[in-house]
Amino acid sequence: MPRFSKAVSSLRSSEIRDLMTLASRPDIISFAGGMPGNDLFPVKEVEELYRELDIKIKQAAFQYGPTPGLPSLLESLQGFLEKKGLPVHENRLLITTGSQQALNILGKAFIDPREPVLVENPCFIGALSAFRSYDAELRGVPVDVEGISIDVLRQEIDRKEKAKFLYITPYFHNPAGVLYTTERKQQLIAALQGTNIPLIEDDAYGDLYFYKEDADRLKPIKAINPEGINICYTGSFSKILGPGLRLGWMLVPEKIYGKCELIKQSADACSPSFTQVLADAFIRSGQIYSYIDGVRQEYKKRASAMVAALREYLPDYVQWSEPRGGFYLWLTLPEGTDATRIVTLAIEGGAVFVVGKTFDPEGRQNNSLRLSYCNNTPEQIAEGIPIVANAIRTICG
Amino acid sequence: MPRFSKAVSSLRSSEIRDLMTLASRPDIISFAGGMPGNDLFPVKEVEELYRELDIKIKQAAFQYGPTPGLPSLLESLQGFLEKKGLPVHENRLLITTGSQQALNILGKAFIDPREPVLVENPCFIGALSAFRSYDAELRGVPVDVEGISIDVLRQEIDRKEKAKFLYITPYFHNPAGVLYTTERKQQLIAALQGTNIPLIEDDAYGDLYFYKEDADRLKPIKAINPEGINICYTGSFSKILGPGLRLGWMLVPEKIYGKCELIKQSADACSPSFTQVLADAFIRSGQIYSYIDGVRQEYKKRASAMVAALREYLPDYVQWSEPRGGFYLWLTLPEGTDATRIVTLAIEGGAVFVVGKTFDPEGRQNNSLRLSYCNNTPEQIAEGIPIVANAIRTICG
Repeated sequence: MPRFSKAVSSLRSSEIRDLMTLASRPDIISFAGGMPGNDLFPVKEVEELYRELDIKIKQAAFQYGPTPGLPSLLESLQGFLEKKGLPVHENRLLITTGSQQALNILGKAFIDPREPVLVENPCFIGALSAFRSYDAELRGVPVDVEGISIDVLRQEIDRKEKAKFLYITPYFHNPAGVLYTTERKQQLIAALQGTNIPLIEDDAYGDLYFYKEDADRLKPIKAINPEGINICYTGSFSKILGPGLRLGWMLVPEKIYGKCELIKQSADACSPSFTQVLADAFIRSGQIYSYIDGVRQEYKKRASAMVAALREYLPDYVQWSEPRGGFYLWLTLPEGTDATRIVTLAIEGGAVFVVGKTFDPEGRQNNSLRLSYCNNTPEQIAEGIPIVANAIRTICG
Repeated sequence: MPRFSKAVSSLRSSEIRDLMTLASRPDIISFAGGMPGNDLFPVKEVEELYRELDIKIKQAAFQYGPTPGLPSLLESLQGFLEKKGLPVHENRLLITTGSQQALNILGKAFIDPREPVLVENPCFIGALSAFRSYDAELRGVPVDVEGISIDVLRQEIDRKEKAKFLYITPYFHNPAGVLYTTERKQQLIAALQGTNIPLIEDDAYGDLYFYKEDADRLKPIKAINPEGINICYTGSFSKILGPGLRLGWMLVPEKIYGKCELIKQSADACSPSFTQVLADAFIRSGQIYSYIDGVRQEYKKRASAMVAALREYLPDYVQWSEPRGGFYLWLTLPEGTDATRIVTLAIEGGAVFVVGKTFDPEGRQNNSLRLSYCNNTPEQIAEGIPIVANAIRTICG
């Protein structure tokens, strides 16, 4: 038997893969995945855009590109991000192979084995897996309906062994669906200033808001540009074009960028030129804006269908909030409930979701579950939610 | 200033980026890059293949795929690899984001900081950068015209602190152009058996042979399937379709595969579905075989043009061998020569290449240089080689 490295020896297969296998069974209604609906992808539009490209650009799509990204995409993406108020000129942009790679690169840049990093609890599993792969000590800070708990955050900041960074997903949080309030963001900024703890701000879902009046809550902390905090802002084409293109990005201060580019070079040399060419054409045609408008309406419709079904079928003791955007709805069950028992029953009934402990940095807390509405028609939702509700009633009474 | 992790702190910007900037200047003839010629890509063929695909497949191209790769590509690629005699059924195949990612994943799987790994000297820079990023101690084993030095290899194997793996590129070595002899492969196998040191066998160029009679030398060690060695075989679509697709693979024993899949998941979740769909269609149409046949002939023509020019212009004291395939030609200059002085002169004259020390694991030995002929017409070669030869004469006399 070969001897693996220490960080890797402790990596264990997650339950996610088995769940995803279940989630792809046609006889089961899946609220498990975080994938956009296949029917929503701009397949035709992108094919037409590609067809019209110059042969030189098509050839370049087959060729290696510079490690930071194709210059044309870096330029068009800067324009896209500038519209969100992001300080694109005072920072450096790096195209990554999905935003998963951005998180992995930042993990590698900062984490030495057994060093602490601060994450939300619950937390995006992709981030947990990236940071775990560098043997980080994950310290979860609870999230409530307004954002991360500032009290607990301050306690964690004051601990003797200083955290290497704080990772948050403030805009339609995965899995909790939370949109941070403006006030909570301000408190977070105040708590971080002067600590020299970098902030990783993951904004994979911010474009998928349902209400225009949330503009202020949606403004990235990176765009607020507070003094004295190194903010590494990450984003993705996965939710606004297609995850199969594997394109994300990070916008980071120059002093952090250099190391990230070297790590990226050693990771996969460059992101796929082929899909970078497609993404660039999609932005430059302006179609990205109308496309996002369209999917926003569609996800809002799906969220409403789920909200209606939950109102009708869920028992009162289940706590949840109406989503204001994104893909997810988070149910909190009575203290002590084991969501694994519920999902087992639900699968028998024909529906599946992800249990809460999957998103707990310590893999324990399990009186919660995540429902995705992004990949279901209102009809599937109306059929599947009663199955989930029945399973909850059977276990919790 | 944020504090970086230890492994990353020591990463330094390589000179490669500056060279590549030079290499892309239209007024300079570049023998520096390892890129296929843009004019050789099967742009039209792939576009037609894509157009004919079913809408369901096109949608899946925009979607996340399973971490190991799209099932259809895994199947077609298995067929492609089986024709090389590779034991695809007794091993597991993992699609990676370029073979650079395969090397990075294997580095992460095996290397703890400051542990020794064995590499060839000279060695592929992508491998050096992947292994350095995990803070490996790189131990170079010299390569001669028949392959790696078995004497030095045995000495290294016998050292007290055991190496974590041996990494080799036996088929049209990058940068040295070497094709291992059958005998040297047998000696290598004998040296490794019983040591429990895994072998990483990188076969990115094997398809680009110029002579059918080299079949035996080209047979992968993985296909010989010797007992008692864990062989991690890596390959790439970069040279047989296009590097801009960022698709490579590893074929590894089951007991190594599990960790690699977990590392891959944390690295970028999955490789691009979009380009996997293209590669799959390219294999299934059979066009990959005729395409490889065509580029083989083209690279052979380019190599011949370079050989002819080197014969005409190079001074006798420069040592080199005629390539039997691949992209590269390696010049060895008199002991003590500094190739950096030569490249400086050559750039002034209008030609560029990569100096030897770039490929030295210790970054020192510099009386050598790499010439690529893959991305030049015979005319460019005829114009550029005299510039290189002049620079050599000026420095070496």
